[in-house]
Amino acid sequence: MREIKVAMIGEGFMGRTHSNAWSQVSKFFKPPARPVMHTSCGRRAEDSKAFASHWGWGRTSTNWADVVKLPEIDLVDVVTPNNTHAEIAMAAIAAGKHVACEKPIAGTLAEARQMVEAARKAQVKTFVWYNYRRCPAIAFAHKLVKDGAVGTIRHVRGFYLQDWADESIPLIWRFQKEGSGSGSHGDLNAHIIDMTRFVTGEEITEVTGAIAETFIKQRKRMTGATAGGIAAGVQGGGETGPVTVDDTVLFLARFSGGAVASFEAARQATGNQNRNGFEINGSKGALKFDFERMNELQFYDATRPRAVQGWTTIMCTHGGDHPYAGNWWPDAHVLGYEHGFVNQAYDILLALAGEEPTVPIPDFEDAYKTQRVLEAALVAAAERRPVPLSEIE
Amino acid sequence: MREIKVAMIGEGFMGRTHSNAWSQVSKFFKPPARPVMHTSCGRRAEDSKAFASHWGWGRTSTNWADVVKLPEIDLVDVVTPNNTHAEIAMAAIAAGKHVACEKPIAGTLAEARQMVEAARKAQVKTFVWYNYRRCPAIAFAHKLVKDGAVGTIRHVRGFYLQDWADESIPLIWRFQKEGSGSGSHGDLNAHIIDMTRFVTGEEITEVTGAIAETFIKQRKRMTGATAGGIAAGVQGGGETGPVTVDDTVLFLARFSGGAVASFEAARQATGNQNRNGFEINGSKGALKFDFERMNELQFYDATRPRAVQGWTTIMCTHGGDHPYAGNWWPDAHVLGYEHGFVNQAYDILLALAGEEPTVPIPDFEDAYKTQRVLEAALVAAAERRPVPLSEIE
Amino acid sequence: MREIKVAMIGEGFMGRTHSNAWSQVSKFFKPPARPVMHTSCGRRAEDSKAFASHWGWGRTSTNWADVVKLPEIDLVDVVTPNNTHAEIAMAAIAAGKHVACEKPIAGTLAEARQMVEAARKAQVKTFVWYNYRRCPAIAFAHKLVKDGAVGTIRHVRGFYLQDWADESIPLIWRFQKEGSGSGSHGDLNAHIIDMTRFVTGEEITEVTGAIAETFIKQRKRMTGATAGGIAAGVQGGGETGPVTVDDTVLFLARFSGGAVASFEAARQATGNQNRNGFEINGSKGALKFDFERMNELQFYDATRPRAVQGWTTIMCTHGGDHPYAGNWWPDAHVLGYEHGFVNQAYDILLALAGEEPTVPIPDFEDAYKTQRVLEAALVAAAERRPVPLSEIE
Amino acid sequence: MREIKVAMIGEGFMGRTHSNAWSQVSKFFKPPARPVMHTSCGRRAEDSKAFASHWGWGRTSTNWADVVKLPEIDLVDVVTPNNTHAEIAMAAIAAGKHVACEKPIAGTLAEARQMVEAARKAQVKTFVWYNYRRCPAIAFAHKLVKDGAVGTIRHVRGFYLQDWADESIPLIWRFQKEGSGSGSHGDLNAHIIDMTRFVTGEEITEVTGAIAETFIKQRKRMTGATAGGIAAGVQGGGETGPVTVDDTVLFLARFSGGAVASFEAARQATGNQNRNGFEINGSKGALKFDFERMNELQFYDATRPRAVQGWTTIMCTHGGDHPYAGNWWPDAHVLGYEHGFVNQAYDILLALAGEEPTVPIPDFEDAYKTQRVLEAALVAAAERRPVPLSEIE
Repeated sequence: MREIKVAMIGEGFMGRTHSNAWSQVSKFFKPPARPVMHTSCGRRAEDSKAFASHWGWGRTSTNWADVVKLPEIDLVDVVTPNNTHAEIAMAAIAAGKHVACEKPIAGTLAEARQMVEAARKAQVKTFVWYNYRRCPAIAFAHKLVKDGAVGTIRHVRGFYLQDWADESIPLIWRFQKEGSGSGSHGDLNAHIIDMTRFVTGEEITEVTGAIAETFIKQRKRMTGATAGGIAAGVQGGGETGPVTVDDTVLFLARFSGGAVASFEAARQATGNQNRNGFEINGSKGALKFDFERMNELQFYDATRPRAVQGWTTIMCTHGGDHPYAGNWWPDAHVLGYEHGFVNQAYDILLALAGEEPTVPIPDFEDAYKTQRVLEAALVAAAERRPVPLSEIE
Repeated sequence: MREIKVAMIGEGFMGRTHSNAWSQVSKFFKPPARPVMHTSCGRRAEDSKAFASHWGWGRTSTNWADVVKLPEIDLVDVVTPNNTHAEIAMAAIAAGKHVACEKPIAGTLAEARQMVEAARKAQVKTFVWYNYRRCPAIAFAHKLVKDGAVGTIRHVRGFYLQDWADESIPLIWRFQKEGSGSGSHGDLNAHIIDMTRFVTGEEITEVTGAIAETFIKQRKRMTGATAGGIAAGVQGGGETGPVTVDDTVLFLARFSGGAVASFEAARQATGNQNRNGFEINGSKGALKFDFERMNELQFYDATRPRAVQGWTTIMCTHGGDHPYAGNWWPDAHVLGYEHGFVNQAYDILLALAGEEPTVPIPDFEDAYKTQRVLEAALVAAAERRPVPLSEIE
Repeated sequence: MREIKVAMIGEGFMGRTHSNAWSQVSKFFKPPARPVMHTSCGRRAEDSKAFASHWGWGRTSTNWADVVKLPEIDLVDVVTPNNTHAEIAMAAIAAGKHVACEKPIAGTLAEARQMVEAARKAQVKTFVWYNYRRCPAIAFAHKLVKDGAVGTIRHVRGFYLQDWADESIPLIWRFQKEGSGSGSHGDLNAHIIDMTRFVTGEEITEVTGAIAETFIKQRKRMTGATAGGIAAGVQGGGETGPVTVDDTVLFLARFSGGAVASFEAARQATGNQNRNGFEINGSKGALKFDFERMNELQFYDATRPRAVQGWTTIMCTHGGDHPYAGNWWPDAHVLGYEHGFVNQAYDILLALAGEEPTVPIPDFEDAYKTQRVLEAALVAAAERRPVPLSEIE
Repeated sequence: MREIKVAMIGEGFMGRTHSNAWSQVSKFFKPPARPVMHTSCGRRAEDSKAFASHWGWGRTSTNWADVVKLPEIDLVDVVTPNNTHAEIAMAAIAAGKHVACEKPIAGTLAEARQMVEAARKAQVKTFVWYNYRRCPAIAFAHKLVKDGAVGTIRHVRGFYLQDWADESIPLIWRFQKEGSGSGSHGDLNAHIIDMTRFVTGEEITEVTGAIAETFIKQRKRMTGATAGGIAAGVQGGGETGPVTVDDTVLFLARFSGGAVASFEAARQATGNQNRNGFEINGSKGALKFDFERMNELQFYDATRPRAVQGWTTIMCTHGGDHPYAGNWWPDAHVLGYEHGFVNQAYDILLALAGEEPTVPIPDFEDAYKTQRVLEAALVAAAERRPVPLSEIE
């Protein structure tokens, strides 16, 4: 069987989920090409060796520029910070490699555009890890809409609400523009823009109004140099420094099919640990999804007799009927967060083998459209005016 | 015991709920003044007599202008179409009567201002029937916020989503500006603006962006002159006419305490029959409410040990602990829509007797603030720009 | 229009709900006969006058034996303690009156049997207030089953769980056999036996096993003679006395159509304030109901395509489609506890006028069947053996 | 680091989940001993090689009797059909190996007793894979009860309801006594007996009544010899054969601390795909769990002020606070079915290294207690009488 030799650049939190995906995919799926975890790439040799050994990568390197040129590599998987995506991806493309890149596609819109252009010219295949498309319930929502189950869409609501960022959290990289590009917007709104575009099959044509707000403007600086992430117990020192990204971004928008929409990303929405979802109301039916109950899709079928209409909670775990479900466990033996990544690894392997993925995977061009909406919302918030998408190129 | 003689002007749908409230209040509460259903006023003598007899009004009239001047009347209850509120209310005020008026306070902002001014000069008591304040769960939410249970409020979401207005509904008065003033905005957003102002105890300071949309632009004209409401079986003829009000209005806003907010009213949000509610996230806790489960309040107490934090579903039916509950039935012997009106009748009687109502009742001045937000959102949608509330007087 | 003159015997908690039902029914329904609240009957003249005046009864009496013989009375409504039902009902029957009796039909099975016999001979109409049959969601469940929506029934679960009876509650009448007949069993299991018989359309043929348990065996005796009910603040003295009824009764049973069943009544099921409901699983579908969300019926339609199967939450408030709903408020303007009683008053008036009630009302014969199941469960618990219903006559 | 060399006997559905567990455990946990997937054992050499290669077992064999004696093996993991557990486990024990055995411990009570005795004499460590104990929400429930959060337990309800076994499913091994021992009872009740024993920390002292029923008494025989499981599309031939196991078993029971209990296992409980859970009501609080929402635990804290009491939905994914959660993903990045097995693999490694597992693991002696309850329920159903556990040895 054909092999796909993967080099993964980056070994942080997403390095962990991707490593798991590449190692699990052949156990639960029968992909047409076998992934080989060839090389992982980090910053410090010692850490990188430990990482590779732990997750089963064959080799390790601290020089990504060399790695992406290795003749035996078929696919470069980019899981580094956003502001390095473009450089690495374009080097890989230049070397003729296929590229799978974490979301959002790039740190800036200009970089994203360059990546799209480079990929187009090089005729390589590109993929962006908007993993939630491959959550079975969301993939099934996409199929229902495509099959006409909700009719003409009139309302879209996207929301990704978290609550981890209270005053106790120090000034980690996620609160600093240089490290993260933006705050909740790039981290969370990116997902729900992609998700609603995917499920509706429509594009956003205008951002009509937007609010960006930073509630906690100063945070304690980190002592100790590195400490990553949201981890409990992370301690800040006495001194404070300014938060330079948004805590929340809300915006109103219009979709190409005539729907009106609202979006909201938040990190201090107390009580919402990971409420990542959408609501869609159409002329024939409606859908609701919340990742905190990721195995369930809520469907309202307005074509049923009125007496028995209501929201139906569909447990999207039935093999044969629900995407990916047949490769995992029996009915209602539920799936978790990591499975979306394994499902995506499978679909990337299908695509590389020239087959159709289970549901469409965003390539750089598609992810660039999401990036344009992110940009339009930032402009709308900053300039306090409606921003047509045609203005953002 | 002192009596409060009520004259009710208007005998439509709201005439029904108010009549029920006035007739039930003394059965379940011990108000300090006994309400007397003195006179009801309609357009056609025959209908009015039938109405009065059915609901227990002592007399009937087709001349509201005379009725509001009757010396024996203490309180005029106005339940006519919005565009007639001002004329009737001001006549009643001129006659020295206290006035209870259905929401929204008036058809136009100018009228509302005049009503506020007239009431202030005449020193009469005024009340607006934003009945949802008196739903026990909402009144309890107000108390929790006042007691500091959610801390500093950062996020507010108001939504009132219905789905009755599909293509099959003909061109009833609700779709025509002259009859209704506005569409979903005045009908539904009015409620959630009042409700979030009430629960948060804060004012909206800016409408940052807004969308108003009419999805179904033409509807079949009614044959038969009168037919009211949403009633199933209402039939339109072959000819169509233009819908002159909004189907949906969404807007983003800021609250005086620093919170960001979104609001949405809709009539074609398929699957949502009467989803009238809010979400509030603060630094110490959070609240969620949906009228479709009106007896329940969702409370997240972020001051509890992290291990047992979660959304708590409070059944707001416990006498002694939950407002109004002790006057009705035992725990979890749940209440319905009409009870909010009975509770309000009780609170009006308390206020007229000089006592404190269970929770604050909006007077004309308070309802005028809600009206200003409605107006600001319309301006923001029409002129496609942020509108500070200070601009709307 | 024909009048039905009602005499109500008993003025306690149920006197209140029935009074409300008789006074509201003509406001929301158009019954074929007009109910007249003729006489209410209590123990003490002064209390009785206050009660009658409060609720709108025309006259009052402390002598029920005389009242039930008054020529002008058409219907005697019995809401006294269970152990007095038989005497009053049979006196009314002897006087040729129709009788509506609170549940359970009688204090003992022998009394119930006599009542059935008396009613049969006298050819009067009898009704038992199993009010939950007239909760719209339950009435709709009955119709769905009758129409074949769940197919052959295999599993029935009935539960009525409350949690008011912790150690703080003193030795009120509900804990004493002479006052109440039994504990949770007659109070709560009676409802769910009737409800599951009604919804399934089947009879229970055997109680296979049962447990009756009293967790709190001694309670503080009441000081003050009277104090009724569960009321918070009721204080017991220092001395204790024995609880002589069950706190909980569970039993397993078989239905005539082959289903297996479980039932449970409880008063210390912490967290369940009024969880009165059932689950039914059949070959084609399933139903779930919980009174704490009384407007909702859960329906699983196993004949739908597998991909979209799931539990559908039906809001049973749609006029035309859901029983009783059209007489109340618009969609999802929800109903509460008391409405079941008003709906029953309407159905009794229909029946007295010779028309079909909305859904079947239990007469004495039907309620006697429920009583036999209650008895069989007590025997099964006491004798620790299966008890076929054929044994209980 | 010390290694634990595992030999797994059996390569069916559970072989898959265990293989996944052994391969994932070192990636997400830091066990004190490293598991080595040494040998897997199946019936046919070719299948076994494919299985081992797929899941990463080092060697393969078709002779389990030899494998369990290999000097280098530390732990024998038994995942064969129930009626072979005893023979294999006892051979492994005789060879001085530690044994981890799938549930239920054995095909018969006599076998289970022998296994307990053998393990005791040999002083090896034994484990039974009641994997749900290691679902974080259930492990957390155990801790809450242990810490006194529910007080004295009065009510226990265990239920494991599935709905896969309609008429379309042919006569697979699960419907035949020789293959499966029992039907839903051993398959499903076994889990909820263990789960409620684990969470309450109490023992069942009596089965008071029981019903066992087979609804579908004849099923189509399989054509093709093998075809496994529940798989959709499995086709039976024209001929039918008798089902020799139960479809459902319900029983009532008493716990050692005074609680009354009900249990139910079902395979035709339409609408319940995998509703595996419990409810526990105590004097201070209550708990509810349903595996279909396995990340959530419902907790009612009756010691909170009455006004804010309610069911709290705890998302059991918080590292540090909820068992196992810190080894997986961030808050509300939810877990699935397979993670319970990985968690158990970790705890087995802890135990083998002489450390305390996260929560207690059932050994053979403990699992034998669950087996005795299963047996008591079968006797109670067959002999139609209460069965004290003291009778079952």
